[in-house]
Parts: sequence; structure tokens; C-alpha cells
Amino acid sequence: MLLAASRCLRRGLRCDGAMRRHASGQAASSYAKLTDADFAFFRSILSENDVITDASALEQYNVDWMKKYEGKSKLALRPRTTQQVSQILKHCNERKLPVVPQGGNTGLVGGSVAVNDEVVLSLSGMDKILAFDEFSGTVTCQAGAVLQAVQEKAESFGYTFPLDLGAKGSCQIGGNVATNAGGLRFLRYGSLHGTVLGIEAVLADGTIIDNLNTLKKDNTGYDVKQLFIGSEGTLGVITGVAIALPKLPNSVQLAYLAVDSYAAVLDVFREAKGHLAEILSAVEFLDDQALDLTLTHLHGARNPLEGRAPFYMLIEVSGSNEEHDSAKLTGFLEHVMESGMVTDGTLAADSTQMAGVWRIREGISEALSKAGAVYKYDISLPLPQLYQLVEDMRARLADEQANVVAFGHIGDGNLHLNISTPAKSQQVFDKIEPWVFEWTREKRGSVSAEHGVGTMKPQYLHMSKSGETIALMKQLKAVMDPNGILNPYKVLPA
Amino acid sequence: MLLAASRCLRRGLRCDGAMRRHASGQAASSYAKLTDADFAFFRSILSENDVITDASALEQYNVDWMKKYEGKSKLALRPRTTQQVSQILKHCNERKLPVVPQGGNTGLVGGSVAVNDEVVLSLSGMDKILAFDEFSGTVTCQAGAVLQAVQEKAESFGYTFPLDLGAKGSCQIGGNVATNAGGLRFLRYGSLHGTVLGIEAVLADGTIIDNLNTLKKDNTGYDVKQLFIGSEGTLGVITGVAIALPKLPNSVQLAYLAVDSYAAVLDVFREAKGHLAEILSAVEFLDDQALDLTLTHLHGARNPLEGRAPFYMLIEVSGSNEEHDSAKLTGFLEHVMESGMVTDGTLAADSTQMAGVWRIREGISEALSKAGAVYKYDISLPLPQLYQLVEDMRARLADEQANVVAFGHIGDGNLHLNISTPAKSQQVFDKIEPWVFEWTREKRGSVSAEHGVGTMKPQYLHMSKSGETIALMKQLKAVMDPNGILNPYKVLPA
Repeated sequence: MLLAASRCLRRGLRCDGAMRRHASGQAASSYAKLTDADFAFFRSILSENDVITDASALEQYNVDWMKKYEGKSKLALRPRTTQQVSQILKHCNERKLPVVPQGGNTGLVGGSVAVNDEVVLSLSGMDKILAFDEFSGTVTCQAGAVLQAVQEKAESFGYTFPLDLGAKGSCQIGGNVATNAGGLRFLRYGSLHGTVLGIEAVLADGTIIDNLNTLKKDNTGYDVKQLFIGSEGTLGVITGVAIALPKLPNSVQLAYLAVDSYAAVLDVFREAKGHLAEILSAVEFLDDQALDLTLTHLHGARNPLEGRAPFYMLIEVSGSNEEHDSAKLTGFLEHVMESGMVTDGTLAADSTQMAGVWRIREGISEALSKAGAVYKYDISLPLPQLYQLVEDMRARLADEQANVVAFGHIGDGNLHLNISTPAKSQQVFDKIEPWVFEWTREKRGSVSAEHGVGTMKPQYLHMSKSGETIALMKQLKAVMDPNGILNPYKVLPA
Repeated sequence: MLLAASRCLRRGLRCDGAMRRHASGQAASSYAKLTDADFAFFRSILSENDVITDASALEQYNVDWMKKYEGKSKLALRPRTTQQVSQILKHCNERKLPVVPQGGNTGLVGGSVAVNDEVVLSLSGMDKILAFDEFSGTVTCQAGAVLQAVQEKAESFGYTFPLDLGAKGSCQIGGNVATNAGGLRFLRYGSLHGTVLGIEAVLADGTIIDNLNTLKKDNTGYDVKQLFIGSEGTLGVITGVAIALPKLPNSVQLAYLAVDSYAAVLDVFREAKGHLAEILSAVEFLDDQALDLTLTHLHGARNPLEGRAPFYMLIEVSGSNEEHDSAKLTGFLEHVMESGMVTDGTLAADSTQMAGVWRIREGISEALSKAGAVYKYDISLPLPQLYQLVEDMRARLADEQANVVAFGHIGDGNLHLNISTPAKSQQVFDKIEPWVFEWTREKRGSVSAEHGVGTMKPQYLHMSKSGETIALMKQLKAVMDPNGILNPYKVLPA
């Protein structure tokens, strides 16, 4: 899908995008164009440096980090205060100027760059950590605070941040919350819908919704902040976030296991939850096709075990007492080895070995990109059916030169399904889509587990959401952004 | 507030309630009255037994469990399927017949009985557990399933339910979710906004929003199910819930500590989070005034310690390994005793002792009711300011015959503040309200931490939510329930 959708998108951009009706139903022609008066207004409220019009300076705002999505914005604005965000949106709403809110621009579905020439509203100028409460374990920050900076602040107080991502050095808290980022700590700390305590957001008309409190409990009316989590900037622009922080673990340990069947993968997962319970922090899996590809294409990767098996699992524990965690992990490993669920396994002896094992799991995407063309899918499925999709896909592509490779966050029911081909193949692609989405829909799965919708997937939304649900989403959009100025062409289908 | 609001409410009911304009802005006169044709329609879709019109049979639907709120409904309906709920609401919406959805009727703020003569829509006929996935640890049930039944089902598979309440024998999952219930396991397992995976709900016009999946990750568009969590049946009627289950702990242990100051309470809490981290399952506190009252008025209550102190804390741990948990708890206790944060303490030796200690904490409400009149407040505050409210209240009431008693879920920042007087006193009441809410607003607290709004608190909503947020709530209500038929007069202020 990565390559395919990219191709479609670029086709879209090459044809007369400005006049087309886009996925979300807004015609680009219904928007106004920037005038000198608009530039003058923005310069009257922002400093000169924060009104960016120079073509080369605009490039970083117009192109996403993968260089896959490219907008044609003529203007990027970098407000420093919530009041400025409010003034900007009020103006754009009255003038019907479309706006794309932008955080660290690290998304995977083209949600944070313009489709046409929308005004880029960058939150990068609002990067302050506003408050830290060490008793209750909460941090409050502006939306543009970089994840890693907030993580480091939390760690300096003995807390950890409930979210961790590969992009942590550049992604921003506001963008994380707007896209409901999942990441590596999801199994342990859960969804941002549970951990975010407060949000300050600005509606399309400039209204500031100040919900930036740090209360863990508050049952006074509708929890409107939830609407902004995962709506990808289409319902409002998040300007501040307060979040609950778990304690920083003192000890982290990692096991790598070989398993003979997918049924055994589920058994091991169940036993891990039983034996490791409150210290379990990651349960990942990959199949032998994924390992094979990684050992072939990834520089420096080596098999952590001597032999091979159909499946491998990474089981990570983290807790407050190394000795206790070790005892639990050892007990678990003895149990799953003796019972035959696991055929071989190793415990990373130190942080170097741990990094080597994680390198296998985290390097699969890189290996895939070196192996040729790749069609990537980010699917949620009920665990018992999860690997059936991989096997059905293999059967479907049996006559093709296609390597079906699977890995993912088994603990979260999140499958990363990849079809690797020597070169792009329309024939293979036509066998994959829309079949893969239909299969997912039939099992009540999700066609986007963690990456979101952006510009890439509005046309597939109906595969995971009912018509009634999509109609309700459109009603919410209409009431919160009646002129459709916020991140147009994204998330909602036509 | 309990007595005072009750008084106001009863005054409201006694005067001509049918023609008054209520808090949420709907005039009762704008609704239709039930006709023979309506009864005939309901009998055409439900069995005879599920169309309840007999006065004595209606009583249980018209009076809440505290016997504090009383409606005048002439009709209660008990659908068995989501389709029937949809047909009922479609009919009521077209006819402008107001409806009050009702679960176990165990709420504290009058949310689940009629204010006037609304039709009661009882979910008690929809009590099936629909599915249990033992690999991913999820359960799916109809809204009317009783909490305790679902807990027992979960425990039979080695899981626990992330919510526990005193009312578990009669409260229903749908009602728990509709009111965003907090309860005893909140500190450990967090909010229902994080643990609920899927919701099926019916909108006012009968549209079924089927979001009843068990996926842990799903980033396909707006998370509309969040709107139903905590909206107390005013945006839609929840008919089904899917929820993630944590593993059942093998070991539960409890310590009871005496502490010299509120600053030390916070220190102990911070140390508990550090030492006990992933096994911490409850951190409760009470002040000496609360203990004194309990020892005086609660039959069979005895002081777990020999002496007295200004504050007491209950620290509960639960985990997968009793020996490890014991070692951690002992280490923590040695640390807080040696450092002087804690002046005395005891570890419950068995489940009987544990029940005795919990009896102190859980019996305070009963003791208060025996001591005379009581004004009760359920407040969330940032931890550093939490007890200041109690001290300021004592100073304010210094000249009154009033005993200010405080306890609560310190781990969640949730204070239960009680003013006990020998008899009802308007003078004391006038010194408390609205001062207590203004104080709370100033510290960005919540005037309803866990009990919700119902009919009791719409007029106080603005103390915890900004005008802009309340305006947005009203917009959401207008778009999802344009005729205002769902649970009228509740949650939203005029």
C-alpha cells in the first residue's frame, strides 16, 4: 500500500489537484486564496521570522520526512502562544483559508503536509514544558514540545513517559496526541485516551477550549478532549497537553524465543501474561520469513539463536526490582520450555545483547526496503485470527513472485503485514487490494491500527467503520469546523 | 450538598415540574404525552411483560436506590435486543417523547430516574455476556450485564475486571460506562476511556452506532465511542460494551499507616509509587476527624493502631507473586518508618484483618449518616492543594457547630469532603456553598470527581468547565439529539 498509495497520490497531485473534489468532500475551489491583506494580518500578530514565505524555508513544511507527500503551501505560520493560534484560525475561518496543523511532520499517512496550498500552522514555536507535578506524576506542556525532551524531563524526576516512538527526537506531543500514537509502550501503559488528562485546543473559529487540567478524575459533563485525540487536526488544533506519568522502571530484561506454530505463539503470550503480569512491557513477534529477510539484507544482523523456527517472540519485562523481575522471567522461561511451547530461547545478558535482539525486530522495515518493492499494511485483528490473514495472503499469492512477511505487536493485536516483490507489480497489487481490507473488515479488524488515516486512507475508512459511524463523524466535523478549513481532504471520505 | 440538593430537587418536583424550564434548557411542555397509540406500538415490538405500566411494578423504575430521587414515569420498557432499542428510540424521537435510560439505578446524582414522566428505557433485559477472548483478555457484553456477573466470568478465566464498585451486585456495565464510573481499581487500571475497547450505542433517532469491536488499536477516524463514556445517556443509549481485562492478581496485601502531616501523606504516596510501582493498587487516606467519627458511630469498628495521629493511609498492593510483593511492601514500610514519614503502622496479617482495616475506610459514610446531618462533596484537586480545602473549610466554619471530615482516594487526587452537623443548618450550608465550588474552580479542580452530574449538579458545571467547553457540549447534544429526548434536564445547564 505504501508504494501504491504513494503512486495514486502523486498522480492526484500531478493532475489539476486544485480543482478536484478530494476524498473528504471539500472542493478546493470553495476555499479562498491568500491575499496581501492576509499576509499583512499575519505579520501584525506574529514576528517577521514566524511568517515564513521564502520558498527554500518553506520546503521543510511542505515535504514530509519520508519525502513521500509534498504540499504547495505558500505560507507557514509559527505562533508562540495559544492566543496567536486563536487569532490565526479566526482569521482563516472568516476568510475560508484552509489550514494544515503541523507538529514534527513524522507521520506515515500524509496527515501533516498540505494536499494543495493550505496554510501550514506549525506548532514548533510552542515547545515549552509548562508544569511538572512530582507528587501526582503529571506533566503539562505546549503542543510543540518534542517527545524526547518531555521524556527526559520526566526521567529526571523518576517518571517515564507513557509513549515511546522511533521518531521521539523530532515528533511533538501535540502531534502524538492528535494522531493517537501507539508506539512501543502501548502494551504496558495503554492508549492516550486513558493517559492524557487535559488538552487545550483551538476550534476552527478561534474558540479556545481550555481543558488543560491535570486531574485524574473529572466527571463534569462530556469529555470533549477525547474528540481531539486521534482526529488528526481536523476538529481543532491542539495547543497544550497534560498527561499522567508512570514511575520509571529500575530494571528492563528481554527474552528471545523460537516457537513452532502460531497457536503456540498465542499460548506463550497467554502464559507471559499469567507469569509476568504486571511487569510485562512488550510482546512482539516475527515469522521466519521476516527473520530470513532481515539476516539477508540487514547489515550486522545476526540470528540470536542457533537454529530456525516458524516464529520468534520478543518478551520484555520492566519493573521496580531487578531480582524479582529476573525470578519471574526465569520461572516463565522454564515453564514454556518444559511444556514444549517454546523450542529454543535466549535471555539477553546485557544492554548490548538486548539492542542486538531489538535490532532484528526493528530492522525488518529497513530490510524490506532493501529487498525490492514492498506493499505494507498496518492491521489490527482479534488475536485468534491474526495470522490467518498472512496464510491466506500466501495462498492467494502462491503463483506470484511475492514474499509475504509478517511481524508486529502481538500483545496489542497489531499485525504489520508486508508483501515483498522484486519490483513493483500491478498484478500482485491487484490481488492484494481491496482483498486485504475486505478480509480485515470481515473479521471486524482495523485497516489502520496505529498509523492513522491522513491523506492515504480516507477511501478505506468504510472497511473498518460502519456507514452510520462515518455519518456521525461527518456531523461532528460539520458542527466543529463548518467551513472545513481544518486539515482538509484528510481522514473523512467523500 | 447531598441534603441541600435533595431539598431543592424535591421542591422542584413539588411545584409544577411539568411546566417548568429545567436546568438543561428543555421545557417539559415541548414534549408529547403518551397516547394509546404509543402503548400499542410498544406492545407490538416488545412482549407484554416488557411493557411495564402497573403502578406498583413501576416503583422500582421510578425511585432510585437511595430513595432520594423520584420520577413519575407511567411507562417502563425493557427491550431484549439492540434492534428493539432502536425501534423504541426512533418512535420516541418522531413523537418527541422523552426517555430516561436506566441501568442498575445505583447512581448518586439522580441520573437514572425520570425528572417528570419520561419513559424509562431499562437495559436490564439485555444482560448477556456475548463473547470472551481468553488470548487477548477481552469480554464483550450487553449493556445490562451486571458488573459482578462479568467480574466472575473474567475471574473464571484468570482475568480481573478493571472496575470495582460497592454496587457491583446490581450496577450494570452499560451504566458504569455511561457514567464513567471510577471505583476502587482506578489507581491501578485507569479510566474507562482507556480500558473500554468497543461500544454499541443507539442514537436518539434510532441509528445504531456499531463500534463493538475488541481491538486494542484502531486509528481509523474519530473515536466516537468516547462520546458515550460519561455522557450519562444524554447523547445515546449504550447497548453493548467490549472491554480489556487485566490478569487476576495472585496476591493482595494491605498496610495501614499513621502520618503526622499532609505534607508527609504526599511524601509517603511518592515513596509508595517509587518502591511499589507496578504492584501498587490503592492509596487511600483519612484524617483523624474521620477516624474519630467512625470509631464513635460505626458498630464493631476498632482502631487498627494503638495511638492516634492527624492522618492515616491505606496502602494496598496486588501482584502475581506473593513473596516478591511482600518483600517490596516490607522494604517500603521500613523506609518510611525509618525516615520518620510514618509514625506508626501495621500490616494486615490475613483477609479478616484486611477487611477490618477496609471497614474503617469504607464505613466513614455510614458513620457520617449516623452522626447527624451531613453535607457531602466529591472533589478532584491537584494533590499539593487537596487538603488545603479542608483546612480552609475548618477556618471558615470555626464559629459553627460543624465537624469537617476528610477522606478519599489520595492516589487519584479525589477528596471526599464532609461537613457533619448535629442537625440541618441553613447557616452552615450558606457558608459552604457556593464557596466550596469557587475554591475548587480557582485551583482548576473538579466539582464532580467520580459521581457525575445527573440532575444534581448541572448548575455547578460552570465551576469546572469553561463557557466555551459547555457551549461545545451543547452543540454536540444538539447534533446528536436534536429533539432533546435523551435523559432530559440532566448534565447540561440551562
